[in-house]
Amino acid sequence: MEKIDVAIVGASGYTGVELIKLLLNHPKFNISYIGTSEGEESIEKLHPALLDIANLKIEKSNAEKIAKNCKLAFLALPHKTAMSFAKELLKLNVKVVDLSADYRLSLKSYEKFYEKHIDPENLKDAVYGLAEINKEKIKKANLVANPGCYPTASMLAIFPFKKYIKKDTPIFIDAKSGVSGAGKKLTNSSHFVQVNENFTAYNALKHRHEPEISEHLNSQGITNKIHFVPHLLPLTRGMLVSVYLQVDEKFDAIKVLKEFYKDAKFVRVREEAVSIKMTAGTNFCDIYAVQRDDILFVSSSIDNLLRGASSQALLNANLMFGFDEDLGIPKIAYVP
Amino acid sequence: MEKIDVAIVGASGYTGVELIKLLLNHPKFNISYIGTSEGEESIEKLHPALLDIANLKIEKSNAEKIAKNCKLAFLALPHKTAMSFAKELLKLNVKVVDLSADYRLSLKSYEKFYEKHIDPENLKDAVYGLAEINKEKIKKANLVANPGCYPTASMLAIFPFKKYIKKDTPIFIDAKSGVSGAGKKLTNSSHFVQVNENFTAYNALKHRHEPEISEHLNSQGITNKIHFVPHLLPLTRGMLVSVYLQVDEKFDAIKVLKEFYKDAKFVRVREEAVSIKMTAGTNFCDIYAVQRDDILFVSSSIDNLLRGASSQALLNANLMFGFDEDLGIPKIAYVP
Amino acid sequence: MEKIDVAIVGASGYTGVELIKLLLNHPKFNISYIGTSEGEESIEKLHPALLDIANLKIEKSNAEKIAKNCKLAFLALPHKTAMSFAKELLKLNVKVVDLSADYRLSLKSYEKFYEKHIDPENLKDAVYGLAEINKEKIKKANLVANPGCYPTASMLAIFPFKKYIKKDTPIFIDAKSGVSGAGKKLTNSSHFVQVNENFTAYNALKHRHEPEISEHLNSQGITNKIHFVPHLLPLTRGMLVSVYLQVDEKFDAIKVLKEFYKDAKFVRVREEAVSIKMTAGTNFCDIYAVQRDDILFVSSSIDNLLRGASSQALLNANLMFGFDEDLGIPKIAYVP
Amino acid sequence: MEKIDVAIVGASGYTGVELIKLLLNHPKFNISYIGTSEGEESIEKLHPALLDIANLKIEKSNAEKIAKNCKLAFLALPHKTAMSFAKELLKLNVKVVDLSADYRLSLKSYEKFYEKHIDPENLKDAVYGLAEINKEKIKKANLVANPGCYPTASMLAIFPFKKYIKKDTPIFIDAKSGVSGAGKKLTNSSHFVQVNENFTAYNALKHRHEPEISEHLNSQGITNKIHFVPHLLPLTRGMLVSVYLQVDEKFDAIKVLKEFYKDAKFVRVREEAVSIKMTAGTNFCDIYAVQRDDILFVSSSIDNLLRGASSQALLNANLMFGFDEDLGIPKIAYVP
Repeated sequence: MEKIDVAIVGASGYTGVELIKLLLNHPKFNISYIGTSEGEESIEKLHPALLDIANLKIEKSNAEKIAKNCKLAFLALPHKTAMSFAKELLKLNVKVVDLSADYRLSLKSYEKFYEKHIDPENLKDAVYGLAEINKEKIKKANLVANPGCYPTASMLAIFPFKKYIKKDTPIFIDAKSGVSGAGKKLTNSSHFVQVNENFTAYNALKHRHEPEISEHLNSQGITNKIHFVPHLLPLTRGMLVSVYLQVDEKFDAIKVLKEFYKDAKFVRVREEAVSIKMTAGTNFCDIYAVQRDDILFVSSSIDNLLRGASSQALLNANLMFGFDEDLGIPKIAYVP
Repeated sequence: MEKIDVAIVGASGYTGVELIKLLLNHPKFNISYIGTSEGEESIEKLHPALLDIANLKIEKSNAEKIAKNCKLAFLALPHKTAMSFAKELLKLNVKVVDLSADYRLSLKSYEKFYEKHIDPENLKDAVYGLAEINKEKIKKANLVANPGCYPTASMLAIFPFKKYIKKDTPIFIDAKSGVSGAGKKLTNSSHFVQVNENFTAYNALKHRHEPEISEHLNSQGITNKIHFVPHLLPLTRGMLVSVYLQVDEKFDAIKVLKEFYKDAKFVRVREEAVSIKMTAGTNFCDIYAVQRDDILFVSSSIDNLLRGASSQALLNANLMFGFDEDLGIPKIAYVP
Repeated sequence: MEKIDVAIVGASGYTGVELIKLLLNHPKFNISYIGTSEGEESIEKLHPALLDIANLKIEKSNAEKIAKNCKLAFLALPHKTAMSFAKELLKLNVKVVDLSADYRLSLKSYEKFYEKHIDPENLKDAVYGLAEINKEKIKKANLVANPGCYPTASMLAIFPFKKYIKKDTPIFIDAKSGVSGAGKKLTNSSHFVQVNENFTAYNALKHRHEPEISEHLNSQGITNKIHFVPHLLPLTRGMLVSVYLQVDEKFDAIKVLKEFYKDAKFVRVREEAVSIKMTAGTNFCDIYAVQRDDILFVSSSIDNLLRGASSQALLNANLMFGFDEDLGIPKIAYVP
Repeated sequence: MEKIDVAIVGASGYTGVELIKLLLNHPKFNISYIGTSEGEESIEKLHPALLDIANLKIEKSNAEKIAKNCKLAFLALPHKTAMSFAKELLKLNVKVVDLSADYRLSLKSYEKFYEKHIDPENLKDAVYGLAEINKEKIKKANLVANPGCYPTASMLAIFPFKKYIKKDTPIFIDAKSGVSGAGKKLTNSSHFVQVNENFTAYNALKHRHEPEISEHLNSQGITNKIHFVPHLLPLTRGMLVSVYLQVDEKFDAIKVLKEFYKDAKFVRVREEAVSIKMTAGTNFCDIYAVQRDDILFVSSSIDNLLRGASSQALLNANLMFGFDEDLGIPKIAYVP
């Protein structure tokens, strides 16, 4: 069988290189186009780890050129740039998995927390790419909004307990991410000396992932108010999310999790506390929960660059083309 | 003026070496006795960093010998061993600052969460050594129970908001500590390969620091239920505590903090998120707070080995002998 | 085509888990037997990252049982245990790739630096598993001695310059390894607090990898005296080796490297300094060299657990069964 | 006794903040002036760790103003800027300890490896501030060139073996530094994700510290050719230098070291391998050596920001004012 040609647009960042790595191993997709805003660079200059791995050409991103061969494009672009590209590509009949925030929110929320949306038309049809709740829709979508890393880990921890959560009580999400989540940009807060042996909260109670979490919990019938505080971990890759819920009754939390995720290929329920190392390098979301009186603590762990971005995007692409969802999706962690 | 002779009992661990380091620089205390369970070792064998620093002899811990010269002993011992030593020393008229958990709880709580108490007599008179609430009592105490690291950071974040906390709502404490908090013992969970690039919760909702926090918040009139989950950070030294409170009204959280701590020498209120590096190497507790609707997020940072143990112990000793509380107490962080 | 059944003996350590991970993805080998000294444990208890990955049973290592199905066994055992197992397996017609030091040295050297050899018969026929120099021999071997990590990185850096090295001058190898190289054992020197933010030499000028390097350089005609000092890096995975050579003439070092390794599938010559991250997660050895007057500096980087152990072992197994050497061998690094 | 007013010029970097920290604790120097290129900033904005520590004002660096009160200025400036400032200050009778490279080399070397020197007059009288070889000259100096970090650690490891080093053999220095050595500047090579879990050589055989080492070894009669390769460690603070020497005879290397440094207050000879943690936070240089046949391996460890910069600068200032050399100089490491 011939492989399907796909494009990666925005290949210079961490999620871009992850997409390249994943697609090089994929049995049914072929990287036909790699675009960056600069273009014309050798792959080993851009990502020295890829020296001698494959013969890949980098071009200046151009929608027309992509549309010549590619059936699908992954957009690993900053928000705003993403929607402008997506709009063009969709018009040219190229399916899109967008890793930015541009199609994740309702128009109203987007314009409140980001800026004016330039592609409201397609926004209406965009499918939120979390297979655990939207698998059938993703299969039929032309445009998938790939979820944020924090929302992925947070919502997967909360969904299973929908019927137990006490009405009108707040849900607290204390989230922690490795530094790769902040991207390659040079800032004081990504300088080694600043991060190493350090730990801090940031954007407390005002991070833009909070409306994404609230909106999609809402769509699943969970209307409690969400309070979200992210923190920066002194490590490269991984994310751990701690959720505090108030519940109405006593139940077996592990059993509830196992039942809820019994058909999920990429959620693992653990009977002991989850940790970042167990999921780093994979598409798994590991989840653990423990109850005490009317309080439930749920902890989930994902690889922020994979389940929180690139491998989840590839899984969505698999679904969009009728492939097995786990085709070419990494399951084996980088341990030790 | 002649210096006052003091003893360090249990000098082989991290809090032991911190006490040695602090006391070597103290203008009014003199290390007269260093005891370990083994004894008879050279200081540079026990703590190679102290080679050529001072002429210190290590002995097998013995209460009678301590009582010969020492007016005060710091006990950096495991719980149970600590109370057996404290009992003896107090009988011999040696004041005690105990860094273990043995005198921090009510008899009832202690026997519920630890084991049978062997010194209930002295427990009754023990003063909980948190100067921000107990300064006058500490000055007159013969036995000070030095607070735990998690309780110190947690309670200092909560006290100032007493009158704002909504009645009967739960308080959530999501705490994170560096690995030195777990001591020198060789365990799988302190192996470098296990900790490095990793992060995990442990003892979720059942850590023994929770009753310590609850009981002393209670003694200050804060009766809300406490839910406490500690996590292990991949770094050596430092602790950050994130507290989630439900409050009744809108107020200026930074102003409340500044007012509450206006006379505190070792609490710094910050207008931006606090971080571990700012306090590592010092006795400071840095605190930040932000409100959103009826939710208050408070974040506090301490050095788990200093403010969470040894420098707080020394500050208590200062008070017990009528010295300035900040005599010989470190204020300058280990940055960068 | 049916897969060939293989065994992993000694699956509890880091090289054991790497073998499992590699073989799970291998198109022509099937893990038929996993043995540990204890046996009877679930795979996710032994290696929690492997939860829900594959249905693997762990047994107490037993040669007879292995010989029933397996055509080849990987021995990830301590030295001495390894040779006792290898001897048995070879008698039962099971091919062996031994990851220990037991078959790497001449009898004389082995007994000088280790202990009495209990299998001198097979030692005579063992092939040193460095494909860059021994490919044809490996193809025909029944017993392959998989090279040590330091020797692999050191020798690959030195071989190409054989004809340039000044006679009778010493060769200095300043090597640095991540902590996984020391294994899972709990020791003071693998405690997180001891390793983190630290760096030190160990076994300076007396590490047992030095005779391995000397002997195999010798077999390739390089008779200069080797002086080897390893250091411990505060990171999990990877190794960098810095070699100092005295040379007779001026030449283009990069060109020499490229020419020497033009057919090597797992050596990459870089025109800028190599680094640990570029090879971590792969079987590559990256090499860089620079000359100044009569001095040549060569720097090589490998993943100590893969090229320095498990993936190199698998590559040897590929050759022993006539497969392409790169079948199932990882090329894509763990970056970022 | 009144304290002597001193200035810190260039207070925004790591060596600047270390100078502030050291001088705040110094019994005889008083920080009278803190200058940066920008000026007019609050100290806690520039160095948040110093919040509530001291009442320090930051000004735009100005030589005339400094000269009003200050008897000495520490210059923590980039090279070139430093000599322009030093020239002015010396004319105004302010003593100078210059932490840049501007006065460390002969005119000829400086102009070869850096650029045209603009203050050759003072360069002639500058004293190289390594107390172990120049103590008496420093006492009388008006201008001290504070040694580089790599040269300090390298030369202290080599000096003691002068009479044993084989004539005309090369000396190899394989050096490793923490990231703080590269300063606060935002570069790809200081981004956390780039440094963490990584290790690499840089400027191999062509680092500008090599001529500094060669020239000052030369001035002590050691004329062997130096070959120097620095590497970047994934840690914040500390430096370890590995030196490879060829020697003529067998001797007791530890004894030689102890004899050579018997009067040195800030060199510790260790009988086991030195490590970065033992010196981090102090002015100590720890040294270890081991011999094997005609090869000597010497390993030295310093804190790159203290012994390699700021505390060595303060020690030089102590000597210039007739104080005890160890006045206010840190001896107690940041362990654990």
